[in-house]
Amino acid sequence: MFSKESLDNLILSKRTVLCVGLDTDPAKIPAHITGTTKQKVMEFNTSIIKATHKYCVAYKINVAFYEALGMEGWQILFHTAEYIKSHYPQHFLIADAKRGDIGNTAERYAKAFYDEMPFDAITLSPYMGIDTVAPFIRRGKFAIVLALTSNTGASDFQLQPMDDGKPLYQKVIEKFSEKFGRDEIMFVTGATHSPMLKSVRSLVPDYYLLIPGVGAQGADYLTTLSNALNASGAGVLINSSREILYASSNDDFEEAAAAAASKYEF
Amino acid sequence: MFSKESLDNLILSKRTVLCVGLDTDPAKIPAHITGTTKQKVMEFNTSIIKATHKYCVAYKINVAFYEALGMEGWQILFHTAEYIKSHYPQHFLIADAKRGDIGNTAERYAKAFYDEMPFDAITLSPYMGIDTVAPFIRRGKFAIVLALTSNTGASDFQLQPMDDGKPLYQKVIEKFSEKFGRDEIMFVTGATHSPMLKSVRSLVPDYYLLIPGVGAQGADYLTTLSNALNASGAGVLINSSREILYASSNDDFEEAAAAAASKYEF
Repeated sequence: MFSKESLDNLILSKRTVLCVGLDTDPAKIPAHITGTTKQKVMEFNTSIIKATHKYCVAYKINVAFYEALGMEGWQILFHTAEYIKSHYPQHFLIADAKRGDIGNTAERYAKAFYDEMPFDAITLSPYMGIDTVAPFIRRGKFAIVLALTSNTGASDFQLQPMDDGKPLYQKVIEKFSEKFGRDEIMFVTGATHSPMLKSVRSLVPDYYLLIPGVGAQGADYLTTLSNALNASGAGVLINSSREILYASSNDDFEEAAAAAASKYEF
Repeated sequence: MFSKESLDNLILSKRTVLCVGLDTDPAKIPAHITGTTKQKVMEFNTSIIKATHKYCVAYKINVAFYEALGMEGWQILFHTAEYIKSHYPQHFLIADAKRGDIGNTAERYAKAFYDEMPFDAITLSPYMGIDTVAPFIRRGKFAIVLALTSNTGASDFQLQPMDDGKPLYQKVIEKFSEKFGRDEIMFVTGATHSPMLKSVRSLVPDYYLLIPGVGAQGADYLTTLSNALNASGAGVLINSSREILYASSNDDFEEAAAAAASKYEF
């Protein structure tokens, strides 16, 4: 059960906004970890989680990396989510799934990620509208709506002006924040759009922002942080994946991951 | 391996544009089918496929309904896709997954649905832009981009005017059809927007349209068909799910499903 306030407290007590992204690629797992794909990914994930949990407040599991592992990928996803929630229940657990579908289908996705698996939040695409996000609103959980993403394709639609001159992503933030509260939704805003982060923060001063794009995607951490923090000095989750997971490809990967994660302390 | 032309030929020879949607809900499976959830869903799906394959050109598997079944849901999804491709390889097989993510993640989803599973096409959200769809472009496969969906939330963003007065969905169709060819992408256009179907067809006369919203969602089949057919008398896949799957809840469900599917012949 999380709320805007409990997340703020967690961040202020741990002195970090870091969310570690578990985009685990079997081809990048250090060579000394052996076994089946399932064994290797589980050993790598649990090692990374043990090494980094002190230095982060959240984990984000990129579902695509597990679906790509075939039939057993979904099992590895389940076991990873369960491992985090049973060992580190204070950590906020995000399914980065970017789902979005009509009501009766959205309810199935909510069942999959909230009931079958113990996720606290899920990322969602806003394209199909408010009614497709509503089934993911539950007490203590967060629907995390894509607003301005970190890829170049963001300029194709998200940054295009609507008839009132405002870009589409701003319309998305306005409509969703009008409908849902700060304990119900968050917004994804890419760190690569540094100048726009400040304007997003002023649009929704009380809402959490999930920020990818720091690290491997190029944005600077401190600039991002200063643009995005809320009045309490929290309100942000900054995701880093590759930079932490693959900080070393040798048998010191746990220490290297911990060192990379600890740099996010403020 | 499918192309716009091979799909046209398939439709013209079978005299139907029907795509049967396998949104299988274990709670709605006829009571005489017993066993574990996995056994029941597989028996129901294979029975529906056997009963309807003569009367349709495509199957669309709604991934959410399988993810909601927990860890074994992904296995049932795999087995259903494999059953269709091994028994009825001429049928066009769509993953209704509505994915959409940055390049390195999109590649994983493409691997999951095209390599690990034998899907011919996948539905995608356009919100994150052209570069998020590019990894799904492969010879003989189709990326099916959401344009105008059948739910009421379509009015939140898709129908909103951009600065040139055109609605967002039209911008989506224009940008994607500029970039990708008629053998690479299709567009989802809900049948519930009957007046707009004609204008979509005139925007992209050569592209396939995947049309949900006929049947349980309320739109009329013949009107939809007359608005959407291309110059060859094809170019459309009309999806029907609940109306066929649950045509009867008794032990005549196969005959009832076949009868419901055969109504789509033209």
